[in-house]
Amino acid sequence: MTKPKNVLFIMFDQLRWDYLSCAGHPHLHTPNIDALAAEGVRFSRTYVQSPICGSSRMSFYTGRYVHSHGATWNRVPLKVGERTMGDHLRDAGMDCWLVGKTHMKADDEGMERLGIPRDTVIGARVEQCGFDVWERDDGMRPEGPDGFYDPKGAETYNTYLRDKGYDSANPWHDYANSGRNKDDPEEMASGWFLKNSRKAAVVENDDSETPYMTSRAIEFMAQADDTPWCLHLSYIKPHWPYIAPAPYNDVYGPEHVIPVVRDPREQQEAHPVYKAFMEGRVGKAFSRNEVREAVIPAYMGLIKQCDDQMGRLFQWLKDNGRWDDTLIVVTSDHGDYLGDHWMGEKDLFHEPSVKVPLIIRDPSKAADGTRGTVCDELVEAIDLAPTFLDYAGGEAKPHILEGRSLKPWLHGETPDWRDFAISEYDYSQKAEASMLAATPSQARLFMVADANWKFMHAEGLRCQLFDLQNDPDELVDLWDSPDHCDIIKLMYDRLANWAIRQSQRTTKSDAEILAKGSGSGGLGVVLGVYDETEIALPVTQFYRGKPRPGPSQ
Amino acid sequence: MTKPKNVLFIMFDQLRWDYLSCAGHPHLHTPNIDALAAEGVRFSRTYVQSPICGSSRMSFYTGRYVHSHGATWNRVPLKVGERTMGDHLRDAGMDCWLVGKTHMKADDEGMERLGIPRDTVIGARVEQCGFDVWERDDGMRPEGPDGFYDPKGAETYNTYLRDKGYDSANPWHDYANSGRNKDDPEEMASGWFLKNSRKAAVVENDDSETPYMTSRAIEFMAQADDTPWCLHLSYIKPHWPYIAPAPYNDVYGPEHVIPVVRDPREQQEAHPVYKAFMEGRVGKAFSRNEVREAVIPAYMGLIKQCDDQMGRLFQWLKDNGRWDDTLIVVTSDHGDYLGDHWMGEKDLFHEPSVKVPLIIRDPSKAADGTRGTVCDELVEAIDLAPTFLDYAGGEAKPHILEGRSLKPWLHGETPDWRDFAISEYDYSQKAEASMLAATPSQARLFMVADANWKFMHAEGLRCQLFDLQNDPDELVDLWDSPDHCDIIKLMYDRLANWAIRQSQRTTKSDAEILAKGSGSGGLGVVLGVYDETEIALPVTQFYRGKPRPGPSQ
Repeated sequence: MTKPKNVLFIMFDQLRWDYLSCAGHPHLHTPNIDALAAEGVRFSRTYVQSPICGSSRMSFYTGRYVHSHGATWNRVPLKVGERTMGDHLRDAGMDCWLVGKTHMKADDEGMERLGIPRDTVIGARVEQCGFDVWERDDGMRPEGPDGFYDPKGAETYNTYLRDKGYDSANPWHDYANSGRNKDDPEEMASGWFLKNSRKAAVVENDDSETPYMTSRAIEFMAQADDTPWCLHLSYIKPHWPYIAPAPYNDVYGPEHVIPVVRDPREQQEAHPVYKAFMEGRVGKAFSRNEVREAVIPAYMGLIKQCDDQMGRLFQWLKDNGRWDDTLIVVTSDHGDYLGDHWMGEKDLFHEPSVKVPLIIRDPSKAADGTRGTVCDELVEAIDLAPTFLDYAGGEAKPHILEGRSLKPWLHGETPDWRDFAISEYDYSQKAEASMLAATPSQARLFMVADANWKFMHAEGLRCQLFDLQNDPDELVDLWDSPDHCDIIKLMYDRLANWAIRQSQRTTKSDAEILAKGSGSGGLGVVLGVYDETEIALPVTQFYRGKPRPGPSQ
Repeated sequence: MTKPKNVLFIMFDQLRWDYLSCAGHPHLHTPNIDALAAEGVRFSRTYVQSPICGSSRMSFYTGRYVHSHGATWNRVPLKVGERTMGDHLRDAGMDCWLVGKTHMKADDEGMERLGIPRDTVIGARVEQCGFDVWERDDGMRPEGPDGFYDPKGAETYNTYLRDKGYDSANPWHDYANSGRNKDDPEEMASGWFLKNSRKAAVVENDDSETPYMTSRAIEFMAQADDTPWCLHLSYIKPHWPYIAPAPYNDVYGPEHVIPVVRDPREQQEAHPVYKAFMEGRVGKAFSRNEVREAVIPAYMGLIKQCDDQMGRLFQWLKDNGRWDDTLIVVTSDHGDYLGDHWMGEKDLFHEPSVKVPLIIRDPSKAADGTRGTVCDELVEAIDLAPTFLDYAGGEAKPHILEGRSLKPWLHGETPDWRDFAISEYDYSQKAEASMLAATPSQARLFMVADANWKFMHAEGLRCQLFDLQNDPDELVDLWDSPDHCDIIKLMYDRLANWAIRQSQRTTKSDAEILAKGSGSGGLGVVLGVYDETEIALPVTQFYRGKPRPGPSQ
């Protein structure tokens, strides 16, 4: 075939780039994802635009930097009017559906101000980040004294669980993400508490979140008609709570935990923001061996389950004629430190946090030459939306979509490409901002990474610099190295050039700009003309002779 | 009174900052505007955010830099969702009406995409830049072989003229902006041709554009009820076509033209962009004495007419009780080179182009201490929207409005203030971009001005630097002066810091960010906790004990 008809855009949440056997993990065996890589391209340097779920996803979906779309952290609403891949793909004749998580927070104020009702197709799409919703499930059903994190979240899944007999006010937590205590088998052992990570979640594997979502995706694809579709299949796992159902809780043990990447020098000379994160509760917890030895095997088990579900999903595609007419993409919204660099979770720009897996299989003949290869070019999460639009046959929209189509790489071409990648992090809502007395406008970080260097700018503070060639583990911060002043200056220059880019003229394309010019000459605007002899007649015919009697148009 | 109830926001178009007697013009006598300045504050260093009508106005109305709102040139649509002073003022209980010009180009695609009908109040406001329209008249009725510049523009005014007996397909041009030839008094002498500038437009003064708009504003104010209002009274004049009705065509002559500000060195060592503009048709025309001697007296006559209309308007306010409950603002959207610096029109950042008059009279007692003073602080056009919001009693919205309220200055306070002002110019639709082979992303200019220096950055080209203290006429470009490297570096740093600012997180205020923190702890997100002993009970109560029977909420 010349090009795939559909796009299956699979996202895991918090999946580290190197926790796949095809990316070199020595113990975690992911044969199904590996097989996809063997038939596609693995992009080994893919950076997310922010190492935090919500902002990263809004960049994936809009194809725009966080600095452009403004959803700077989780639950900062994506402003009404920002277009997403759904809008662009539908314009190109491709439907765009969601099964799973987006972390989208709708701009309620904007929708009300513009009079966009939610119970219309337009309103529902604005509210749901441009997707048509097969099932929205952010996989976030935490509950605390102030209520639910997401009051409407995951109710379909909870209803499913209850129908299956998991009786609870919140079976998402009480069964799918909790084990039971040994002493009293009716007492919950919550997956929120890291010591419980190795326990088996008291849910049947088939009823746990990853297989459930896979089933929902298959259900969508099975009923789809001939209209080309993009399906965003967006899993919550291996994201916390770190707890897996049997048998996955027990596939890996502490003996499979790869050595931690950290160095005491990191603590001694740490950048102030990095230091604040290291010294926070999460950093401290993940620096403890008992935490790592409990969490990492569970995390690996969750990934193993994900991989098995990929096997199931890919088999369905093969059995139903979709394997060869569907572009398949596997990625993640950010990584997980897992104790590396004295850190847990994500937030900063070390590779375990900001780099993600990206594997794309294009079934078309044009991609045969690249199957099984690894592409080391700098890829950004914002490249996916323009890639999908390219496959959908839509016109490129560089005045809106700031990423670039990856299709040339998949087809063995070598396009002009970026020299550096950008990521951003706004920590103004984190405790670390208070620790540093940073105002919201100060509590912002920017990464500039190129083939050899990774640089971080922190508003109001010193920078950070790592030599990726000679220090691939990013342990030695060269911010004050006299030998690296030129590199640091280059990085600041790149950041400035990037920051000043035109990102908001989204109502007019470069092509329209070039085609029209000022457009005013032919419309009778006559500037700098002393008399009629200085300008061609057609423009001036309206301005000579006697008044034409009115009225005109 | 403690604060004025209404805002009368008067804008002229293309009125140079120094073409007022209160600003030092030796021949042009503007007693009515001077009187306003004598009772208010004249801000002597007010910069527009772009020296071009449409972009400048979108910054005035949105309170945001062009880099933020994206309407980078005339007729680049302001994207749907961008809020304007109308939205903000109505939120604070103040109506916001328009009489005259906005140069607003609606985002038709965005309105259709979001399903916003034009025949609703919401749709009409989105289409009209947030204003309720008493009368929209952009004063732009040029007509050429490709049609009208603004097909719907100025029809009300044309109908008015026809009703008055000015029979024509386009009386805006044929009468209000044209004289007649001496040889054949029925033959038009179009105001488009600069040689005709000194002729009298064949329209009665009362029927010409400036008095007409004044009448419409008075009509609005006369019918207004007690609801506080902001009225944007937005004149097209003294903008081209440069032609005035009697007696204003004949008030000034070549003997009143102040000396041109230019120097042969400017041509010899010109910045490439500046050189391209100088060598364009407009620059060449306005470098000719015959052009200046025809145009400038007409331009002065138009300003004299504007001032007389201010006298009429202010008298109406006094006679009708509005003088003392209305904040009155007089400004312009940009200036006019008029041959200075070998340039005509606007486009670049010399003072005649980028600096505008700004006079504000606050009738309240709190402003008594500043009456008749001149404020030399750096003011930006984007300061007006937050100023009006402040007077309307609305909460400041610095996450949306990038300017700052001028009220403290009016009340004799000395707030923390900006160190530099920014202006931008996108010349991608101008012939000069083709001359320089500049792509749309390259064809962009940025000004950084502080108390002493004015700097211009041109994408891909060298910079420009003027010493405003020692070279107030901006004749000597110091871009390659070895003594000024530090200043140039400082200016580049300021531009970079500005460019990286957070301008798009408009859906959440700093106050909301600070009040909520991550907000996830109280909602049950438990991170970095090994066991129950490490966290306070209220958060964990949902995660201990036996499952609560469902269903929950």
